[in-house]
Formats: sequence, C-alpha cells, structure tokens
Amino acid sequence: MFDRSLLLIPGPTLVPESVLRAMAQHPIGHRSSEFSHLMGEVTAGLKWLHQTQNDVLILTASGTGAMEAGIINFLSPGDRVLCGCNGKFGERWADLCRAFQLQVETISAPWGQPLNPDEFGARLAADTDKTIKAVIVTHSETSTGVINDLAAINRHVQAHGQALIMVDAVTSLGATPVPMDEWGLDVVVSGSQKGYMIPPGLGFVAVSERAWRAYETAKLPRFYFDLGKYRRDAAKNTTPFTPPVNLFFALRQSLQLMQQEGLPQIFARHRRTSQMMRAAAAAMNLPLLGPAECASPAVTAIAPTTVEAEAVRSLLKKQFGIAVAGGQDHLKGKIFRIGHLGFAGEREMLTVISALEAVLQQLGHPVTPGSGVAAALKVLEAAA
Amino acid sequence: MFDRSLLLIPGPTLVPESVLRAMAQHPIGHRSSEFSHLMGEVTAGLKWLHQTQNDVLILTASGTGAMEAGIINFLSPGDRVLCGCNGKFGERWADLCRAFQLQVETISAPWGQPLNPDEFGARLAADTDKTIKAVIVTHSETSTGVINDLAAINRHVQAHGQALIMVDAVTSLGATPVPMDEWGLDVVVSGSQKGYMIPPGLGFVAVSERAWRAYETAKLPRFYFDLGKYRRDAAKNTTPFTPPVNLFFALRQSLQLMQQEGLPQIFARHRRTSQMMRAAAAAMNLPLLGPAECASPAVTAIAPTTVEAEAVRSLLKKQFGIAVAGGQDHLKGKIFRIGHLGFAGEREMLTVISALEAVLQQLGHPVTPGSGVAAALKVLEAAA
Repeated sequence: MFDRSLLLIPGPTLVPESVLRAMAQHPIGHRSSEFSHLMGEVTAGLKWLHQTQNDVLILTASGTGAMEAGIINFLSPGDRVLCGCNGKFGERWADLCRAFQLQVETISAPWGQPLNPDEFGARLAADTDKTIKAVIVTHSETSTGVINDLAAINRHVQAHGQALIMVDAVTSLGATPVPMDEWGLDVVVSGSQKGYMIPPGLGFVAVSERAWRAYETAKLPRFYFDLGKYRRDAAKNTTPFTPPVNLFFALRQSLQLMQQEGLPQIFARHRRTSQMMRAAAAAMNLPLLGPAECASPAVTAIAPTTVEAEAVRSLLKKQFGIAVAGGQDHLKGKIFRIGHLGFAGEREMLTVISALEAVLQQLGHPVTPGSGVAAALKVLEAAA
Repeated sequence: MFDRSLLLIPGPTLVPESVLRAMAQHPIGHRSSEFSHLMGEVTAGLKWLHQTQNDVLILTASGTGAMEAGIINFLSPGDRVLCGCNGKFGERWADLCRAFQLQVETISAPWGQPLNPDEFGARLAADTDKTIKAVIVTHSETSTGVINDLAAINRHVQAHGQALIMVDAVTSLGATPVPMDEWGLDVVVSGSQKGYMIPPGLGFVAVSERAWRAYETAKLPRFYFDLGKYRRDAAKNTTPFTPPVNLFFALRQSLQLMQQEGLPQIFARHRRTSQMMRAAAAAMNLPLLGPAECASPAVTAIAPTTVEAEAVRSLLKKQFGIAVAGGQDHLKGKIFRIGHLGFAGEREMLTVISALEAVLQQLGHPVTPGSGVAAALKVLEAAA
C-alpha cells in the first residue's frame, strides 16, 4: 500500500527531491578538476554551517566513525577525559574512549534528563593539576530527545583552560546554533543523514587550532582516520582516500538549499516544529520523556502510559505509512520518537500529529479529535 | 560540451542506469524490517560474489577503511607480517601496518612487475618458529595494472600453516576469480566503486573462521571498525552503526545484474576487454607498463615514449569527454591507465580505442588509423 514511507525518525531523515536527483548523477573521478571544484564548494558550505573558519573535514564513515576520528587524533592512551552520559550516544562515546584505553570519568544523568553543567564545573575546578585532557558532550541526545546545555558546559571547559571540548553535534548541527568559533569549540562531529538532509555515508569533523596542537603529540595509532592527512589534502581540495562522490553531489545541493533558507530561519523552523510536537503531545494527553526546558529541536520522545509505544508505531506505519522511531536499549518499547530534523518541517508535523490522533483513538487512548492539530496550529500562529 | 564524461578510470567506475535509479530512492530507516530484508539480500549476494560461506561484512568506509579493519581486527602490536609491495597500494598496506606498530617485512618488485611467489615461499619456509602472523597481498595493483599470482603466493602461505592470508581484492573481485573458500583465504577486502558497479562509499571485508580465531586474541584497539560487532549484528540482518541505505539499494541492484550475467561470464568479459586493450595498444605502437603475463583484468597501464601521457589524457578528455587515469607517485606523467572494470565493457573499449587513435594521430604518434580497433575486433572474434 505504501510505496514510500514518510520517514520521521531522527535519522536517516527525509531527503529533498533535488538532492536525490543530484545524487543520482553518474559518478565523476575523484582526482579530476570537477571533483576539486565540488570539494571546494562543499567545504565552503560546511564552514558556513559550522559558523567557523576552522577546518571541516569530510570522512567516508557514519557518525560514529567521525566521532572515533575526533577522539583518536587528539588523545593518547591513559589520557583522562570527562564524558557526559545521559543517553545511548553519550554512553557510546564513553565505550569508545575505553576501547582506546583512555581514562574515562563519566558525568551522568538519567535517560530523559539533561546533564548538569555544574557537575562539569565542579570536576573541572577540582582539576588544579590540569590532568583532564578533554570533555566530551553529546549536544542533542538522539536517544531521548534531550538537548544538553552545551554553552554552559563549555564555559566551564573554557575556564579550565586546558581541556579540549569535543562535541557530538550529530542531531544538533543544522537544527540549533553550534557556533564553533564564537564558543571556542575544539572538535565538532556530525553525520550526513541528519540536519544535512542527505542519506547516510558521510561523517564530518571540524577541528580547532588548539585541537591541531594536541594532534602533534597525540599517540593513538591511526591511519584511515588520521585527520592530518585529510587536512593536508583538503587544502588542495582533494581527499586521501576515495570519497563517495555521489554523496558529495547530494551535499552540494543540500547546502545550497540550506543557504537559500538561511541559518536563523532554519533554527527558527526547528524551534517551531519541536514546539508543535510538544504542544500537540500535551493536547493529546501524551507524556513527554523529558522536561520542556531541555527539549531537543531535532527529536521528541513520547513515553505513553495508557497505550503501548510499539502499538502506536506499528499502527502509524500500517495505516498511514509513517515511520517513527522506537526506544533504544532499556527504553525499548517504552517510548516512541518523532524526528523533526532537516527536511521534516511543519507540513510533516501536521501529518504525523493528525495521524497520531487517529491511531490513539483506535487504541483507546483518551484524545479529542482535532486537539493535537489545534495545539500545533496555535504554535504556528504565535510564531507568525 | 560534455555533460557527462565516459568514466574509464579504475574506480569510481561506470554505474548502470538501473543502479543509479535504485540509489535515488527515498531512504528508509535502518532499524526497519525493510532494511533487514535488504541486508539479507545483499549479504547473500556478497557471499555468492566471494564464492564463500564465510561472513562478508559491510562497512561505511572506502577500500582503505575496509583494509584497516581487515588488519587491526586480527593482529597485535609487534606482530610480524609479510607485505607484498609492487605499487602504490601494496606500499599503502605496509604504511598502514607500520601505523599500527606491526613489524613489517616487505617483499618488493618494481612498479609494473609482479611479485615473485618464490620469495614468499622462501621467507615463509625459513620461518620455522612460525612467527609470521600474516601475509598481505594486493591481488590486482590498481596503480600499475599488474595482477599478482595470488594462487601461487597463497599455496606458500597454506604450506606455512599458521600465517593468515589477507588479500586486497579491491580491483580483482568481480573481475577475476577470488574463490575464497576454495583457496582458503582468510581476509578479503574490497570496495564498492570497482567491480561492484556502484559509487564509492562501501567497503567489504570477508573473514574466514581461522581469522575469527585470531580475532579472539588480537590486541589492537578498535571500535568503529570492530568486526565482531558487525558479525554479531549481521547475523540479525542489521548493522552496529547507521549504514548508507541508499548505497545498499544500489548494491542490491548491481548484485542482481551480476547474478543475471553469471560469474564465469563476468570473468570472461574482463579477460576479453583486457585483451582488447592490450592488443589495441600493441597495434597502436603503445608500450605497456607491465608484461602481458601479469596483466590485470581490471586496468591497463600504458607508458608512452613518443608522446606525453598527460597530453593523451587531456586531449581524450577535451575532444571526446573520455576520462582515463594518470600515473600515481613516481609514475605521475609517465603512464596513463584505462579501466575496464565492472560496467565498462566491449562497447567502451571500442570507444576509447578509436578515440585514442584520433588523439595519438593529432599528437604526432605513429599510428595507422583503424589499426587499434582492428586488433580489438580480432580479440572479440577469437573469443566468439
């Protein structure tokens, strides 16, 4: 029945038609002047998106590969790192650091709650010997729909003066400001299948000058993910290893679309869709997993109590061809997550909210038909 | 003038229209039943292509990333490895091994000449303590158009009985037999933009049971490229990290095309196109870089003496919109390389050979118009 699902998971996200068409071009050689030109264009666009003059390097890898690159290039075995853990991805970075023999200390919060910046402040202030080499923060926790207060945590890192601040911006970049230069962020990692509006397959690592100085002495072994190689080649608009040229075509087109819309407009749109979703959930008597103060602009996690989360997901899929995400790890079956990231805008929110009303009613959940949509429209009206 | 180049470099290779169309579909979620079904289909196809019952794992990475995974999962710092070096890629694997603190011994031949299997035999026979942990061989050296005698080298490795045999099959898989199970190969690495006929972005690592036993005790740090994770998840038709779903669509389609053609037919076609190219070069008075006995079925390297290699390349591009590759490293400007890999078949060989005749004539090289094409047609006639 549904030749195409409406993909409202927090990644892969919806891809615009013109991006799909760009991607479907015949490949070009990666050692050609055409490719160099393409690489120059996308690199300029990436710097614009990161609000930075730093290098933004492009890897053939998923977000986790980019995160690994962001960590192994700047640290050495035994280095002490602070890692924020309040969801699946924060925990993944702690695991990754342990796999590379770093000395990991975690600052945790329950899944669905934000990290407390003061705990970072206290731990960093106590480090008078300056042995903490890096602080790793997942900006938007995709697994729970919580955004961490990166600006506040970063102020503590800057006050420490020695530790690098490394940011998983996978579902925050292109959804909310991540002003790398203004905030003095050292390593910012992202992946193509999120705010970039292109399919998965590219990872991005933006690197500050301070991080490049750490690179000089970092001792973890690396080859494919050796960012020094990528930096050297990027300066000549080329890559050390064969890049996925078709995803570069897609990226050029999506960056053009983003630049046409404008960063402030993109961020405002994500605020609106996030608010639409939360207002509609409240009107439909659906509890959110996390508090409104730390709501991610990219994904909303709903923790229903009167109906099974998986029943909602499967009925949305079966009846309306709408794909939303489930919970991960211990939240499996307990929540469902709706992505409002990248190309998923107001139109898609109205679609999924009205479909949710139908599905909830069928499942016997108390909902007034039209109430979710009305609440969402009120958000739109207020924003107009 | 040329909206599309005819891409006859040894990768990225030409992509069939139906593969491009498959790739341009809207992405699906990677934690969906649709994706699991897709992954099951491509995994079965990959085993068919590798002629194996072993795991064939799919990474979001270019060929070098897959090679790194193939090495770091089965070895430990200080391990003694033998690495064949007769071109850019052999040398890259030696560099990669050194980056991971392996004890690398190289067996070399000049670029353009094949590795001598007897040298492997002697080195392995002398290793009575069995301290050599792995032998690394680039099957088809893309940089020189030389195919190494993997079957003969492998016989020496099997006689040793302990060392793993690790194969870079990047431009041999899908072009010439790499019968993993029959030969007892342990690690076979490849990349999507070659014989697979899809754009770059996927790397593949096939792993024998013997290699999995080595995995248990291998001590190099790994996370993104930890193949144990991929194996565990592949058994459930899923992936540990977000896969590039659109390249999976492309891969399913290209594997179907390959299965329709049949492995023996694919290999015979590559033999034909390789012979066409070499026969035409001889008829056009163009010297080959390497001897005929070790001619790669995937790429032919021509080392012209009467004209500049770069002049040939640029005129082919300018006048006919045909892209062929140049030389790498010290062969830069000295050779040009024509890919006859994947979707580049007899039709494309006739195209590039006739265009070469025109270009050579313009550059003042002694060539009888029609002689190259006539020689190529003779090969086709003999093969019919």
